[in-house]
Amino acid sequence: MKSVYLDNAATTPIDNQVIAAIHESMLANFGNPSSTHAFGRKAKAAVETARKSIASLLHTTAANIVFTSGGTEADNMAIICAVRDLGVKRIISSKIEHHAVLNCVEFLEAEALIDLQFVNLDENGSVDVSHLESLLAESPSVKTLVSLMHINNEIGNILDLKAVGELCKTHNALFHSDTVQSVGHFSMNLEELPVDFIAVSAHKFHGPKGVGFLYAKSRTHLKPFIHGGSQERDLRAGTESVHNIVGLQKAMELAYLNLEKERAYITSLKRYFIHTLMDEIPGVRFNGLSGNLEKSTYTLVNVSIPLSASEMDMFLFQLDLKGIACSKGSACQSGAQIGSFVLNEIYGDNLDYPGIRFSFSKYNSKEELDYVISILKDLAILKSS
Amino acid sequence: MKSVYLDNAATTPIDNQVIAAIHESMLANFGNPSSTHAFGRKAKAAVETARKSIASLLHTTAANIVFTSGGTEADNMAIICAVRDLGVKRIISSKIEHHAVLNCVEFLEAEALIDLQFVNLDENGSVDVSHLESLLAESPSVKTLVSLMHINNEIGNILDLKAVGELCKTHNALFHSDTVQSVGHFSMNLEELPVDFIAVSAHKFHGPKGVGFLYAKSRTHLKPFIHGGSQERDLRAGTESVHNIVGLQKAMELAYLNLEKERAYITSLKRYFIHTLMDEIPGVRFNGLSGNLEKSTYTLVNVSIPLSASEMDMFLFQLDLKGIACSKGSACQSGAQIGSFVLNEIYGDNLDYPGIRFSFSKYNSKEELDYVISILKDLAILKSS
Repeated sequence: MKSVYLDNAATTPIDNQVIAAIHESMLANFGNPSSTHAFGRKAKAAVETARKSIASLLHTTAANIVFTSGGTEADNMAIICAVRDLGVKRIISSKIEHHAVLNCVEFLEAEALIDLQFVNLDENGSVDVSHLESLLAESPSVKTLVSLMHINNEIGNILDLKAVGELCKTHNALFHSDTVQSVGHFSMNLEELPVDFIAVSAHKFHGPKGVGFLYAKSRTHLKPFIHGGSQERDLRAGTESVHNIVGLQKAMELAYLNLEKERAYITSLKRYFIHTLMDEIPGVRFNGLSGNLEKSTYTLVNVSIPLSASEMDMFLFQLDLKGIACSKGSACQSGAQIGSFVLNEIYGDNLDYPGIRFSFSKYNSKEELDYVISILKDLAILKSS
Repeated sequence: MKSVYLDNAATTPIDNQVIAAIHESMLANFGNPSSTHAFGRKAKAAVETARKSIASLLHTTAANIVFTSGGTEADNMAIICAVRDLGVKRIISSKIEHHAVLNCVEFLEAEALIDLQFVNLDENGSVDVSHLESLLAESPSVKTLVSLMHINNEIGNILDLKAVGELCKTHNALFHSDTVQSVGHFSMNLEELPVDFIAVSAHKFHGPKGVGFLYAKSRTHLKPFIHGGSQERDLRAGTESVHNIVGLQKAMELAYLNLEKERAYITSLKRYFIHTLMDEIPGVRFNGLSGNLEKSTYTLVNVSIPLSASEMDMFLFQLDLKGIACSKGSACQSGAQIGSFVLNEIYGDNLDYPGIRFSFSKYNSKEELDYVISILKDLAILKSS
């Protein structure tokens, strides 16, 4: 059966060069990086070489990179350590953050450790920056962390990190951004960007699952998130997943080496998909800013076709039967078989039709999109007939 | 140069069959287990098959297995969640636990979240069970967690899990055990064993680094350790490291398939090493119970040769130059270039000579041990001359 993977915002196929690097690392380099003998030093060198390479790709220094088990842990580490170690008493976030942030800040609020505020969103799901400014201004003496994602994983809206970061700086607030959907897909200069923490996950850009990192601008006052050995300069105990870190490095290097070429290619796929859908499916709509090629990430589009929620479930089922992988929302929530909380939050009662997220990678082709559109068309016609 | 790896308690070479399983999983099975489409279901099936296989090898049910990024995270999860979610107000542990436990309980004490008590150790570093009993009896109304490792990673002493577990049960205390040095090397029947939590790490039995699990007998009241998606039944958010979990499964299956055969083989290596050292090196001594083949794990021996601390450093340096990997203590601490806190704790001022830990695996041979002993002998003679 034909098989078309268009759920790259959930996870991506691992690049063969990454698989080879991981394989080689497991075979040749099994030492414990904390061991002082030759086997250990070799493993340590692999980890530190990866750290330097990754830091350099993001224009920062290696000391700011803390390896974690993935983006979720990195988000948790930034937020929980900021509250525990840096005196943060208030968090400003949004209701359409990834659950790695949302569940974390709501937990801290439930434990009465912080005051939690949500910034308003406009009709497209973008952060209302003037509302953020007024929230920041209203309690200037309360140590605040702002946590807002760079690229929304469901609708692709891009936050202006620089503008928000500068606002935070002006108001003496710390700024954390979940950049899981952007690192590996967008250039980032952390030397210039006014962010305190970003969270990154390797498997969103053809790297392995189970590894990522936290960028922390200043780690001076941070205490361990996971307690134990002195790995990651006492911030994150546990024997390093050396082969996964090597895989993360390789995936980052490939992503940034080929960034412009792949960005142009994937953008052309997205443009083609949008235009063809508009031509072929009556009533099609694009959620958030995902239909806007300038204001959303090139990697995904969130589409509504005139279908009820139950018709949509049947529709996704049919797509799945035809070998087409896409999703109703973030994968972390899709197991629950509920609709998109992001679209519900933005559109509320105005959400007449559920959304389907199609997300692209370098491995997709125009032919695959043609196949998907033909199936979508058949199903939509079948439905309307 | 000849190269002999005798630091298997720090980490083990990954089995080629494990590497093959990981490779295959990365290639063929990249979906996000939380995705509901075919790619996701396939990845989910791999994770759940691993969970069932692992559970069955330890005679428990899959629902009790929570995958983590390793043993350290599993220890932290058990201890921190027990305090936060299960009302634990007192922790009884020992001063020679792995730092994944020790630093975690000391952190909780420093945050004034628990009362921390240490059980006495006898002259060999074994837990004084009658002291544990008196500690448990003295504050029966305070909800208590006992955290004691099964096999000490430096001296190999074995705790009687059944006896301690029953004692805990009698006193209504929860029992957590760091079993990082025992699972994969010893049979364990969790259906019968009165433990509430055990922590396991794959890379200690020829599996990959960066994956392990927590066994939790009852997870009813536990809240997430890392917040986010609903992975691991809401206990541990973050996209599963599918290939690492598959590797963990393969390593567990191989370990238990060949357990008796490998145990006999490695025991014969340890016996040979001990007897030959006693014959060849005057004044050699075995720390803890590690010289006792019945009362310590077959996987390691902790040796003292009449050398001062500075001579020992030079000695280890020489061994390293000769391609021999062993350690002064746990790898997680060896980066710090300090002596063994375990031996200091047990022997105090009576510790005249530092210890060297040699730890064995199925990949070692009698010939390798002969080489190591010849080098040890040369160095010891050189020193005494």
